[in-house]
Amino acid sequence: MKFAIFATKTKQHLGVVQGDKVISLTLLDEKKFPPCLKTFIENNKNLRLQAEQKIKQKENESAVFSLAEVNILPPISQPEKIICVGLNYTDHCKETGMEPPKSPVIFSKYANAIIGEKDSIEIPINSSEVDFEAELVVVIGKKAKCVTEEEANNYVFGYTIMNDISARDQQFADGQWSRGKTADTFAPIGPVIVTCDEVDNPHELSISLKLNDEIMQNSNTNNLIFTVPQIISFLSQSMTLKPGDLIATGTPPGVGMGRNPKVWLKDGDNISIKIEKIGTLTNSVCNLQTLK
Amino acid sequence: MKFAIFATKTKQHLGVVQGDKVISLTLLDEKKFPPCLKTFIENNKNLRLQAEQKIKQKENESAVFSLAEVNILPPISQPEKIICVGLNYTDHCKETGMEPPKSPVIFSKYANAIIGEKDSIEIPINSSEVDFEAELVVVIGKKAKCVTEEEANNYVFGYTIMNDISARDQQFADGQWSRGKTADTFAPIGPVIVTCDEVDNPHELSISLKLNDEIMQNSNTNNLIFTVPQIISFLSQSMTLKPGDLIATGTPPGVGMGRNPKVWLKDGDNISIKIEKIGTLTNSVCNLQTLK
Repeated sequence: MKFAIFATKTKQHLGVVQGDKVISLTLLDEKKFPPCLKTFIENNKNLRLQAEQKIKQKENESAVFSLAEVNILPPISQPEKIICVGLNYTDHCKETGMEPPKSPVIFSKYANAIIGEKDSIEIPINSSEVDFEAELVVVIGKKAKCVTEEEANNYVFGYTIMNDISARDQQFADGQWSRGKTADTFAPIGPVIVTCDEVDNPHELSISLKLNDEIMQNSNTNNLIFTVPQIISFLSQSMTLKPGDLIATGTPPGVGMGRNPKVWLKDGDNISIKIEKIGTLTNSVCNLQTLK
Repeated sequence: MKFAIFATKTKQHLGVVQGDKVISLTLLDEKKFPPCLKTFIENNKNLRLQAEQKIKQKENESAVFSLAEVNILPPISQPEKIICVGLNYTDHCKETGMEPPKSPVIFSKYANAIIGEKDSIEIPINSSEVDFEAELVVVIGKKAKCVTEEEANNYVFGYTIMNDISARDQQFADGQWSRGKTADTFAPIGPVIVTCDEVDNPHELSISLKLNDEIMQNSNTNNLIFTVPQIISFLSQSMTLKPGDLIATGTPPGVGMGRNPKVWLKDGDNISIKIEKIGTLTNSVCNLQTLK
């Protein structure tokens, strides 16, 4: 099942995407399906089942929209945590000149960075080296604290895509990566969250990124150094993971900083990330100063 | 004015602390003063004025509690961001063996780390080098994006205290500091947020930390390398600061890792941080495993 948050002219909806249509659960039952996926995941253990029943139960044509006519929003906009795993593909470590880590390298973004499908990535005034990174994202489904690798999959609600936008000049000048990773618009996510039942193996998904007409990253999640259960178990030894938390699992090789000459994002660029069984996340790029 | 969030047996309150009493604004007008300071700061530009009027207007004895009989909670529990500035006192840089930075070094905590006055800091199973850090915290009052140093003070709601608890083994093994800084309970904050009018100069406040009976840190915020306006302006060039965001401004010298022999927190310890004009934040320490 593919969940999305979307807006029509008058309303925000929690919906289920089927082909080129999206069915508004919010229109079918507003009380049960408020237009916030995080709230719903928190309050309800059976979102998928209930959504399935609701959709089967009632053929309400007025709740079905063409994807082309709605505005897709970020599926989660205020997670408690956006946790990022760095250097999690061996060949990406090589291109950055860093050793593959012995345990997951963790850094953070804040919710200010989140944008959705078709929103613009803004190049800030204080960076001239803005880069892209295609990443598979795990969406946490329930509270997890000190869970084992064997249990970890029980805590996953589903998967989505993130473009881990990075101001390389700031990232490396600062040493700590936080600032260069969490400028406004630096975390495009979505367009949908796909539930686990549709992704039987998150470690066997093709993942690619296209910048304008050129494929820049093209790999498979079977190249991940630390697997999804390893990452969840590892993090949960320190912090309680909560429903709606997003864990970006790292990027494969091919990023702009690893190229010769280096490739930095610029006004007018178009980026799309495709992950098998999940979908495609597309964003444009603009200069922040042109908006002022 | 000193705002606090507190709980009585039946209810959570937004209150104003006066001496050893706290007046519940929530009891005086529940609609206007919901028991969440972040919501209130977001919705309302005149919290202080309105609170002053309400308290003067009405002498409602049933809204006045002795501080000793209530449970003080974190003044903000779900900020969008907990932004930390590292290495912001020259003598603390020395004791960590690091150079004073040329621009603020930024790292992150998530809201899972927040606890309040008298709550226990839990030493996680995966660290044996847990350290303390007394810090002055700026609480953002309104949205700030690309503001100048001159304007920055207009975006401050007030000040509070944070103990920036750090698992040093993880912090330095990882290189990125995130994981070692954001374990559950690693961000004790409070007990109150003091509005700007009571802190005319945030760069002239004594700041000290006592571990059990010993003063471990004893300095003044006039030793800050980057000032509050410099930090706010710097951050706002990248990210939109939002009401309720917390910015921890760094710690003075005297932390456990800088001592010979090093001092690590242990089960049964008691820590209190005192900042002039703001108050005292006190927490105990326990082993996470003893709770299981």
